[in-house]
Amino acid sequence: MRVVILGAGFAGLEAARALADTEVQVTLVDRHNHHLFQPLLYQVATAALSPGDIAWPIRAIFRRQRNLTVLMAEVEGVDAAARRVRLRGAAPLPYDRLVLATGATHSYFGHDEWAGVAPGLKTIEDATAIRRRLLLAFERAELTSDAEARRELLTFVVIGAGPTGVELAGAMVELARHAMPRDFRRINPAEARVVLVEAGPRVLPSFPEDLSAVAEASLRRMGVEIRTGTRVTGADGHGVQCGEERIPAATMVWAAGVMASPAGAWLGAPRDRAGRIQVAPDLSIPLMPEIFAVGDLAAARDGAGKPVPGNAPAAKQMGRHVGRLLAAEARGAAQRPDFAYRHHGDLATIGRRSAVVALGRWRLTGRLGWWFWGIAHVWYLVGFRSRALVSFQWLWSYATRQRGARLITEAPPAEQPVTTRAS
Amino acid sequence: MRVVILGAGFAGLEAARALADTEVQVTLVDRHNHHLFQPLLYQVATAALSPGDIAWPIRAIFRRQRNLTVLMAEVEGVDAAARRVRLRGAAPLPYDRLVLATGATHSYFGHDEWAGVAPGLKTIEDATAIRRRLLLAFERAELTSDAEARRELLTFVVIGAGPTGVELAGAMVELARHAMPRDFRRINPAEARVVLVEAGPRVLPSFPEDLSAVAEASLRRMGVEIRTGTRVTGADGHGVQCGEERIPAATMVWAAGVMASPAGAWLGAPRDRAGRIQVAPDLSIPLMPEIFAVGDLAAARDGAGKPVPGNAPAAKQMGRHVGRLLAAEARGAAQRPDFAYRHHGDLATIGRRSAVVALGRWRLTGRLGWWFWGIAHVWYLVGFRSRALVSFQWLWSYATRQRGARLITEAPPAEQPVTTRAS
Repeated sequence: MRVVILGAGFAGLEAARALADTEVQVTLVDRHNHHLFQPLLYQVATAALSPGDIAWPIRAIFRRQRNLTVLMAEVEGVDAAARRVRLRGAAPLPYDRLVLATGATHSYFGHDEWAGVAPGLKTIEDATAIRRRLLLAFERAELTSDAEARRELLTFVVIGAGPTGVELAGAMVELARHAMPRDFRRINPAEARVVLVEAGPRVLPSFPEDLSAVAEASLRRMGVEIRTGTRVTGADGHGVQCGEERIPAATMVWAAGVMASPAGAWLGAPRDRAGRIQVAPDLSIPLMPEIFAVGDLAAARDGAGKPVPGNAPAAKQMGRHVGRLLAAEARGAAQRPDFAYRHHGDLATIGRRSAVVALGRWRLTGRLGWWFWGIAHVWYLVGFRSRALVSFQWLWSYATRQRGARLITEAPPAEQPVTTRAS
Repeated sequence: MRVVILGAGFAGLEAARALADTEVQVTLVDRHNHHLFQPLLYQVATAALSPGDIAWPIRAIFRRQRNLTVLMAEVEGVDAAARRVRLRGAAPLPYDRLVLATGATHSYFGHDEWAGVAPGLKTIEDATAIRRRLLLAFERAELTSDAEARRELLTFVVIGAGPTGVELAGAMVELARHAMPRDFRRINPAEARVVLVEAGPRVLPSFPEDLSAVAEASLRRMGVEIRTGTRVTGADGHGVQCGEERIPAATMVWAAGVMASPAGAWLGAPRDRAGRIQVAPDLSIPLMPEIFAVGDLAAARDGAGKPVPGNAPAAKQMGRHVGRLLAAEARGAAQRPDFAYRHHGDLATIGRRSAVVALGRWRLTGRLGWWFWGIAHVWYLVGFRSRALVSFQWLWSYATRQRGARLITEAPPAEQPVTTRAS
């Protein structure tokens, strides 16, 4: 049996792993060469970690899984009738079973013109671009002699107060208040404003309400200005418009909405408003039993009919479910089990020494929550090298309040594309 | 006294440090926000280290030096008559003494069209661009089914066999033969060719001859093809032309020539063929006693009339000389001492466990040389954090033969430039 998996995020990776030690011939396709630990991407964007600390070559992860081939390629579409995946610049890839795990990207709710001024945070490139803007704003503030421009440069707006928005805002205010101040002579970085804008009534809307209250109080104490119940109606290079109020700001980050990748459209599969494929209980696509959708691409429901959240643990569970199901099928199983989602908890950090954690009815907040959060995340990193590097850098930052990866890097110089004669 | 230093490489940094604890008001200007440890840049290009491991925010380095202001800005020129530096987007910067330490960049000897196909290695961006091409060549070779294209993709040419070229070629062949092989299914990365082309008669032309012979033998043993006495006469996206011979290759790196930055032209100062400013014995510019040139920008001579080499130790010595001279001048000294260059030795690594070191008449080669080289380089890194990170990653690579930073990152998405109202 030939299984093709598209996407090497959490869901695709788990599906591939569950097929180890089977007779199945697996091909894992991704347009990047690396698997990215997205939950820590905000730490790259705020100069705490380097990209290499939280990303690993996909082929190095599967070095020992000899039934698996990794291809770095752009998928152009799926020919479901012929059971083939079309790749850019390479021969089409035939499959017996196809697993779609291509994830989601940010959505500007019809305002794509905001993408240029308020970048989202999904890839390494996004993270280094945000880091560049953030650090450059302080540099330019030090350089300018215009007071109004300086205020604009020292105002940072995060749009969307889900876990990513909350973690970004917390890390930004810490950067400004604790890591930067002694480094500048003309400005006081501690005077920087960080504004967190959320359309809903509370921060961390998907978390239990009591934790939202704790998180909001912590953020305010750290110096984050919070505007809940506030919808962004405009954005340009000099600020955002929130109804009547204008917030002048040179740097904005979009953490408000996501949209599934276009894999559903390749197949004409039924989708919800966010573009996610409405899957059957076994995570296959209705009327296409040989194709599955997992992770952020899938609109799945748990046993009680509640939507499965779009986070890393859910993606891993879905990937593992489909991988195991296919392994059983390869061994001759006729029945496919339904996917059963298990919610373990919610967690988010708020700055350097504080986090909120909900595990069922249990709550951990403040410093204890932070340690739990830190250990849980180091645990889930791939390999000894990353665990050691991330732990060391966190402990170093914890002790010194410094950031280790404060690099402003430019776009690479214009280069001639590397072409092959074959393609 | 107001001292302005342009450039925060080794020379500029040492000049600034030598002015600590003086009454001098120092401004250090660089177009990057970071000081880069260039001797290890080839390790970023070959995926052994992350950019953040060998670069530090300039302002963090000078956090405690309260008489120093760091500005990240592009210099547009020097108005020597008015004693002002013109900066892009900021007010002109007046000075009493000016130190030019703007370094050098690669020179294609009149063939600037080669820049697109054979990038040089001077900045973080150069290093990540080379890393991207190198890793992408293996990915594309795995993807293609055309044998000729595959051979081209698996051929890597390094042009120029100075220390950078030798270190790059050694690291590339190790990457192909030791780190990569088990990661691919369709190609055998160990079959990759690495060709080192040098116009002169031997590798490491600036080193003692016996060390060149040792280095050449080591490189050949590791699998590097060496073409000395060979001049590149053409280069395009599919290979290089060396006289009669054509070497088909998708990836080329330029390590052959350097050209001083244009600071000399700003002033109309006398320059040599490589654009370096011909300085007086005290490193000031003839007829402009208030302006100094140090590091790769300066064509200085030692006591015996021999040219001072363009390497990191020489740059540091020049920077320190001018910094001390200005500190003395600020205290009222009337005499300026001449610069006296002291040559400590030469060293270059050749792959993972081998290096050549010349210290006067002493020689260290092979594994002993490598340990000496490694410890010397860790010693010169800035701060505990980098020393710990680099040491850990080297020991990890040494033990596992793996590379930790195998990331292919794209150019950041098109972004709207961050503009300020003032500029």
